[in-house]
Amino acid sequence: MNNEKLYIVKIGGNVVDDAEKLKKFLTDFASINDKKILVHGGGKIATQLAEKLGIEVNMVNGRRITDAKTLDVAVMVYAGLANKNIVAKLQALQCNAIGLSGADASIITAHKRTNTEIDYGFAGDIDQVNTTVLQNLIFSGFTPVMAPITHDGKGQLLNTNADTIAAKLATSFANTYQVQLVYCFEKYGVLHNVEDKTSVIPSINAKYYAELKAQGIIAKGMLPKLNNAFAAVNNGVNTVVIGHSKQVLDLINPDINAGTTISK
Amino acid sequence: MNNEKLYIVKIGGNVVDDAEKLKKFLTDFASINDKKILVHGGGKIATQLAEKLGIEVNMVNGRRITDAKTLDVAVMVYAGLANKNIVAKLQALQCNAIGLSGADASIITAHKRTNTEIDYGFAGDIDQVNTTVLQNLIFSGFTPVMAPITHDGKGQLLNTNADTIAAKLATSFANTYQVQLVYCFEKYGVLHNVEDKTSVIPSINAKYYAELKAQGIIAKGMLPKLNNAFAAVNNGVNTVVIGHSKQVLDLINPDINAGTTISK
Repeated sequence: MNNEKLYIVKIGGNVVDDAEKLKKFLTDFASINDKKILVHGGGKIATQLAEKLGIEVNMVNGRRITDAKTLDVAVMVYAGLANKNIVAKLQALQCNAIGLSGADASIITAHKRTNTEIDYGFAGDIDQVNTTVLQNLIFSGFTPVMAPITHDGKGQLLNTNADTIAAKLATSFANTYQVQLVYCFEKYGVLHNVEDKTSVIPSINAKYYAELKAQGIIAKGMLPKLNNAFAAVNNGVNTVVIGHSKQVLDLINPDINAGTTISK
Repeated sequence: MNNEKLYIVKIGGNVVDDAEKLKKFLTDFASINDKKILVHGGGKIATQLAEKLGIEVNMVNGRRITDAKTLDVAVMVYAGLANKNIVAKLQALQCNAIGLSGADASIITAHKRTNTEIDYGFAGDIDQVNTTVLQNLIFSGFTPVMAPITHDGKGQLLNTNADTIAAKLATSFANTYQVQLVYCFEKYGVLHNVEDKTSVIPSINAKYYAELKAQGIIAKGMLPKLNNAFAAVNNGVNTVVIGHSKQVLDLINPDINAGTTISK
């Protein structure tokens, strides 16, 4: 491992969908001088497009059930519209972005999720990250912008949770860089009281996480995000922090106490 | 210039839209051992999606008028759905494809078309091709798969004709490789009589092209394709051939007389 930093920043659909929020975030992100990868979702636009096309959207435990038509919409919106607009805006900010899905250069191979009680359809669980390709791109000065689409190596695209992709990329690079994983969303961190946006929990370790879950303070959509965060810190990722997309520069600044830091 | 070959192959929407035709084409394309770039359109799917979304499609002289909503559809279908499905299928055929738009790594910068009698909307005329990025990818064993979307460097994506992109890529590499530009479409070549699929014109030079145009034998959608082909041969591209997508291996085989060859 060298001491060089690699930031892996994930933004959710609510940032991607909002032109003003996205502009602020991308301006901050582009100003990060260290090596960096952006992973994005694109939630609401995909849902809206599916609705317009009369495709029913099924969600179970915060995860979308991906039938063939829903997969097409996800590929169009995530790997197409969201990815390329982000890339064009980063290029305008002098950040040499290159937009990729997991299928491109076979960066992320996955398999169709099986052996669950629910049939998730074309949802992919990650098998392998091709770090060589990404590292060569990063080394050459590019900033990969990853859409949450993977493939099975047999010609099938798969929909994969963006939080999970960010965590897997982070752990894949944990032996090569000092990896900081940053989950940006619409809140200032993990909240003790979801009604009170100032109730950010500054740090959560595994023991405290178990307590918060038992008390029902952390529930629903926050569970997979935190499970991903703990998977990352348990697999060598230096720092995982969760906070607001408009604070990304504060979240990565060790001198500023912003967001929720996850530790073992 | 070295003597190494580079094939730049363009396929149109009719191949991209048809699973069987696409499979045959991609299997052939993947078997080409020389360096290669694929440029694709994605016509009918984009038109169908625009219709489903209630977006009016305007065509003038075979070119789509690109308003903001039509641009979004083009980006979704070309850079998303078509591009990533092609990449996943090529990966399954052991071809190390990487799907890119002109915005990615700023490979193709363009400007919004101006000073024409018609407002083409977000249609981009190409300013520059970043051959260094593509050449590094090709040199590293990747096969770039280019969607016909460019950007202006100021954050705006633009819709750009796929035939023109293929021709510009070909001329950009004319000093580096022995470039062969191959336009694949749904006919066996340029036809003398559009009603007779066996009436392929084996070769067309500039003088003959002028005659064919004057006689009205070449008209409509074939004009921009042939103008692009002549732009390529006039700018150092070794060979330009136009023919059927199912004959791509014959079209690049100098021992087989397939398709229409364009020469100065």
